[in-house]
Amino acid sequence: MKQCFDEIALQTEGRGLYDVTPKIIDWIDKQEIQDGLLTLLIQHTSASLLLNENYDSDVQTDLENFFSRLVKDGDSLFTHTIEGDDDMPAHIRTALTQTNLSIPIKNKKMLLGQWQGVYVFEHRYNEFDRKVKIHLIGE
Amino acid sequence: MKQCFDEIALQTEGRGLYDVTPKIIDWIDKQEIQDGLLTLLIQHTSASLLLNENYDSDVQTDLENFFSRLVKDGDSLFTHTIEGDDDMPAHIRTALTQTNLSIPIKNKKMLLGQWQGVYVFEHRYNEFDRKVKIHLIGE
Amino acid sequence: MKQCFDEIALQTEGRGLYDVTPKIIDWIDKQEIQDGLLTLLIQHTSASLLLNENYDSDVQTDLENFFSRLVKDGDSLFTHTIEGDDDMPAHIRTALTQTNLSIPIKNKKMLLGQWQGVYVFEHRYNEFDRKVKIHLIGE
Repeated sequence: MKQCFDEIALQTEGRGLYDVTPKIIDWIDKQEIQDGLLTLLIQHTSASLLLNENYDSDVQTDLENFFSRLVKDGDSLFTHTIEGDDDMPAHIRTALTQTNLSIPIKNKKMLLGQWQGVYVFEHRYNEFDRKVKIHLIGE
Repeated sequence: MKQCFDEIALQTEGRGLYDVTPKIIDWIDKQEIQDGLLTLLIQHTSASLLLNENYDSDVQTDLENFFSRLVKDGDSLFTHTIEGDDDMPAHIRTALTQTNLSIPIKNKKMLLGQWQGVYVFEHRYNEFDRKVKIHLIGE
Repeated sequence: MKQCFDEIALQTEGRGLYDVTPKIIDWIDKQEIQDGLLTLLIQHTSASLLLNENYDSDVQTDLENFFSRLVKDGDSLFTHTIEGDDDMPAHIRTALTQTNLSIPIKNKKMLLGQWQGVYVFEHRYNEFDRKVKIHLIGE
């Protein structure tokens, strides 16, 4: 049994879902491990990870619009406002979604369903450099 | 250290929580591994996984009713409507809950709390064949 | 490759976020394993786990206030009311957040981002003894 550690970086350009499935597939291809458990952890508190629909991009738009309506920018409830109107909503949206994913790997393929993709969900408006830590254990 | 892969299948019959704890207990019983880490991943984008209360079935009803009210079928916000009024809400409800669970196993027992059960949360109205991938690593 | 199991206990004193990062750092320090995968599982259905902002305590207050408003105590929708007005909201808040976290460890350090802390999110008003199971696999 072996393990390896790495990191995927991406630059986001505003709120919404970013498909990182191809980057992860490429990364797995380069590893020695064939079968095992992949763990992804996003190192931020205003962006998150999701497994969600990879077919119709309208799904990603609707997801973003739903979360924007559920967690309103500039809501008077919030006291943590110094970093901008979209900052506290970003922390809440992160809490409502996921910060890590665990995905079994068999024959170097993620055991995802046909319509599942791996997404970084950016919750802030500006550009950000986001990092996702990767851990793979197996053989 | 060893690992094994498998799959649990179930047919759902409409929205709500389906207790898959017994199926998982049965599966663990048949494995060689005594102590390790169990990973569950549901291969869908309109059904999810939850650890939640296993005692009073009213909890499951209330959970379903809360999510139905929070994410309204046929909401005019949604543009992804071709697969039905309940489809986009199902993707959002999946995003709001979990698609994978990681559960330590000791002496072939999941280290869950007394009141915790493992549930598939079906977010669509019709019958669906749902698959949960299982990975177990340990010894 | 080795693995070990343990438990962190804490007493909560009402709703809100409790930083357990120091307890986990202390625990990792005492283990033989340098590099691996850490899994945390909270054994309750009315408290959950979160990776969230560790800098400004206003974030934790705002998170709690948001969830209190989103899931109202004593909502007439709920039928599971025998354990108190805050019990069914606690199950829903648990479903909306996380019950387990998977965190890669390198050189005995959790690979978290600079502003990420590990929190127990208590969803009930009274004092509770909460337990978080720990599993670590690696070498």
